[in-house]
Amino acid sequence: MHKEWVWEQSFAMTESVEEIVTDLAVIARGFYARGWLLGTSGNLSAVVRRDPLELAITASGVDKGQLIPKQILMIDENTRVLSEHAAGDSPGFIRSSDKNHTVYKPSDETLLHIRIVKERGAGAVLHTHSLWNTILSEVHAGERGIQIEGYEMLKGLEGVRTHQHSEWVPIIENSQDMPALADTVSSVLERHPQAHGFLIKRHGLYSWGKDLAQAKRHIEIIEFLLETLGQTATLKSRRS
Amino acid sequence: MHKEWVWEQSFAMTESVEEIVTDLAVIARGFYARGWLLGTSGNLSAVVRRDPLELAITASGVDKGQLIPKQILMIDENTRVLSEHAAGDSPGFIRSSDKNHTVYKPSDETLLHIRIVKERGAGAVLHTHSLWNTILSEVHAGERGIQIEGYEMLKGLEGVRTHQHSEWVPIIENSQDMPALADTVSSVLERHPQAHGFLIKRHGLYSWGKDLAQAKRHIEIIEFLLETLGQTATLKSRRS
Amino acid sequence: MHKEWVWEQSFAMTESVEEIVTDLAVIARGFYARGWLLGTSGNLSAVVRRDPLELAITASGVDKGQLIPKQILMIDENTRVLSEHAAGDSPGFIRSSDKNHTVYKPSDETLLHIRIVKERGAGAVLHTHSLWNTILSEVHAGERGIQIEGYEMLKGLEGVRTHQHSEWVPIIENSQDMPALADTVSSVLERHPQAHGFLIKRHGLYSWGKDLAQAKRHIEIIEFLLETLGQTATLKSRRS
Amino acid sequence: MHKEWVWEQSFAMTESVEEIVTDLAVIARGFYARGWLLGTSGNLSAVVRRDPLELAITASGVDKGQLIPKQILMIDENTRVLSEHAAGDSPGFIRSSDKNHTVYKPSDETLLHIRIVKERGAGAVLHTHSLWNTILSEVHAGERGIQIEGYEMLKGLEGVRTHQHSEWVPIIENSQDMPALADTVSSVLERHPQAHGFLIKRHGLYSWGKDLAQAKRHIEIIEFLLETLGQTATLKSRRS
Repeated sequence: MHKEWVWEQSFAMTESVEEIVTDLAVIARGFYARGWLLGTSGNLSAVVRRDPLELAITASGVDKGQLIPKQILMIDENTRVLSEHAAGDSPGFIRSSDKNHTVYKPSDETLLHIRIVKERGAGAVLHTHSLWNTILSEVHAGERGIQIEGYEMLKGLEGVRTHQHSEWVPIIENSQDMPALADTVSSVLERHPQAHGFLIKRHGLYSWGKDLAQAKRHIEIIEFLLETLGQTATLKSRRS
Repeated sequence: MHKEWVWEQSFAMTESVEEIVTDLAVIARGFYARGWLLGTSGNLSAVVRRDPLELAITASGVDKGQLIPKQILMIDENTRVLSEHAAGDSPGFIRSSDKNHTVYKPSDETLLHIRIVKERGAGAVLHTHSLWNTILSEVHAGERGIQIEGYEMLKGLEGVRTHQHSEWVPIIENSQDMPALADTVSSVLERHPQAHGFLIKRHGLYSWGKDLAQAKRHIEIIEFLLETLGQTATLKSRRS
Repeated sequence: MHKEWVWEQSFAMTESVEEIVTDLAVIARGFYARGWLLGTSGNLSAVVRRDPLELAITASGVDKGQLIPKQILMIDENTRVLSEHAAGDSPGFIRSSDKNHTVYKPSDETLLHIRIVKERGAGAVLHTHSLWNTILSEVHAGERGIQIEGYEMLKGLEGVRTHQHSEWVPIIENSQDMPALADTVSSVLERHPQAHGFLIKRHGLYSWGKDLAQAKRHIEIIEFLLETLGQTATLKSRRS
Repeated sequence: MHKEWVWEQSFAMTESVEEIVTDLAVIARGFYARGWLLGTSGNLSAVVRRDPLELAITASGVDKGQLIPKQILMIDENTRVLSEHAAGDSPGFIRSSDKNHTVYKPSDETLLHIRIVKERGAGAVLHTHSLWNTILSEVHAGERGIQIEGYEMLKGLEGVRTHQHSEWVPIIENSQDMPALADTVSSVLERHPQAHGFLIKRHGLYSWGKDLAQAKRHIEIIEFLLETLGQTATLKSRRS
């Protein structure tokens, strides 16, 4: 509780669109450098306003290592672009470096971000495509999830107080039918109210937090633990 | 289709030689940092003009982590250097830091870049020497290619709409006879019209796109998927 | 001896709080970039004054890749925050970028830092959560330590003169009872007077030095050797 | 031959002490970032004058990620420091950031650098402590060397014209008796006149070139190929 209060200060708190956009760009470049957002993959979002919902989210198909403010869109709960809340300076979504006007579009997965914001009350949602979340989402698909327990790193997950905590990371089948996938996400979130993230098979990781600082922390922790499990499985077999 | 149109905006579009040269240098430094262009390996090119063909391409034997504009050459379809289109400011190819005049030469592999530009109508061609493309090009040489399917990341490849897509990455025998190798590349491109890239055994990966943004995206996606396959093969054997 | 004297010059020596704070931030960002301090994990400290003891230490739950001076606290030997020695410019612990006042708290593990400072006479203590220290702390838990010998890199550990040196890195059971864990640390340090660091199972590595330069060197060496042991075990089994 | 002539232009050519010192610092920081010079390990040198020999070499025990000009020493062929040729601005070897005067000393391994400069006519010698050169120097110690053949990357080694080249990387037993080790190095260089580098068991890699550009290229190529061999051995066993 006190700890949580400290957590929420551990990153540049942002209220204005400009500050959220800056933090999204900083996180995007850092995760891209780690190889978690290669090939324009992944999506990052943060809540700008709750009622009515306004979400700042990275546009579809943009290079996360090159992210510029105008590539972050303001959308409503129906994924409609609210152009009058365009990030960065007007006019609208024209890239400073463009010779021609560019209209960026939200990713199809924006639906999943909105679902998570609503059902978890999240203030930020981050989605990464890392080597190890892709690998383990396939290796453990049969069990429909991954059990992680006994690691100190787990204490960084909101509300966790001991390394003895057991975290279940659900794995969902991948699909291109976004409304159907969003419904699956909803039911998984409902069945696993304690989960801090979930995997989509051979696709990637979703995690979230009350703000960007907490969501970033959760992604880093789950990515670290997934690689730890993968490399430990390899090494241990060596010794038996 | 709409998606493709968004894709092509996802990177600084460039028309002028100066802009192409800047983007090539940015990509070179980024790929070098990932270990994909060590030891002066690899080549990067982009089309400056179609008719007659003018290609901007990295010179032979230059450090990709230190790339400067004068190390990018303008060549014609016969790989002749068009000195009057020298990148950077005159005079010609003299390095600002040189005590003596340096004449940079195009790589022998320039032939392959031109072949890909002509047969795929590519606007940019990128060639990397990564750890995992080198390893898998040997491990799968017997099958003469690598099948990649079922990964969401595949959707980042131009024209792919679902993770259920099956991508075949052909593997070509390496050779120092460039005209012969170029002919092999032509026949492989013809036999695999859907391929987004190919491997040369124990040598490296070639991919391309309609512009530098798309070619960069394709390289990042194929490199990511090759490492995923390699690490998954290792991990899975652990468990059986 | 002469060597030691040179060692202690091998990093920006710092006396003032401002210089210590700068070096802690530089080390934090560097280790974070290597993935040794993800998810706000780990703690870094340096002695500002010996008598009475004043320790500069990173606050609980702060992003090590974003560390700013005000997130480094000055504490006494009872882990009380000495606000009048607040790092950075006044007023107190308010983050420049905060909209509201933030009070940072020392980590629970501050107790371990103080114990190491007192029992080893250390001038700096660094604690990392790396992939390989987490993995080997589990794999070797049964032996309650890891033997490292025969590596040239060992010579970088203070007082070691040959690669034939045999270093024992003790492994301690993890616990959330900090006073109890601190006592365990004390007895381990007493039983292993030559040890340059220790592991806490599935938690992380602690190392230290006479100053930040030496502590940084020790962490880098032990992390390097742990990964070397892990990857060697994997590769060797390949060949047998 | 023509190729060689291009090679030697592929990096900022330097004549003055100031330029050599700058290039050594750039290479040191880059290799440190890759984890090849952790814990103050490794040494980098370049010839400033041939007759009498003057060598610029990194001082013992300095942080390669923090290298400053005054930590690069000018020595003669007997490893004596030529203070009157001190790098950087006078006075002598006092670190700008030091509160007290610091006298940096050459590493004991300076002897090996001088031996390589004399016996290979090298203009630069680089010594790295990477994860994979440490691992393979142990794994292949029984064969007293590592055979590398069939990789395109080999063509980046000076004088190599085809991937069919077979490179033998000798492995020497480690020793703290530097004169004896230097003699062993001499006899190994004599027995293997074509070698571009050698390993010292559980210690590290030495490579060299006619200038810093070529030596940097050789280190990057050999490090890349050693990791390729190590990871391939792991993966292949997976499949048999």
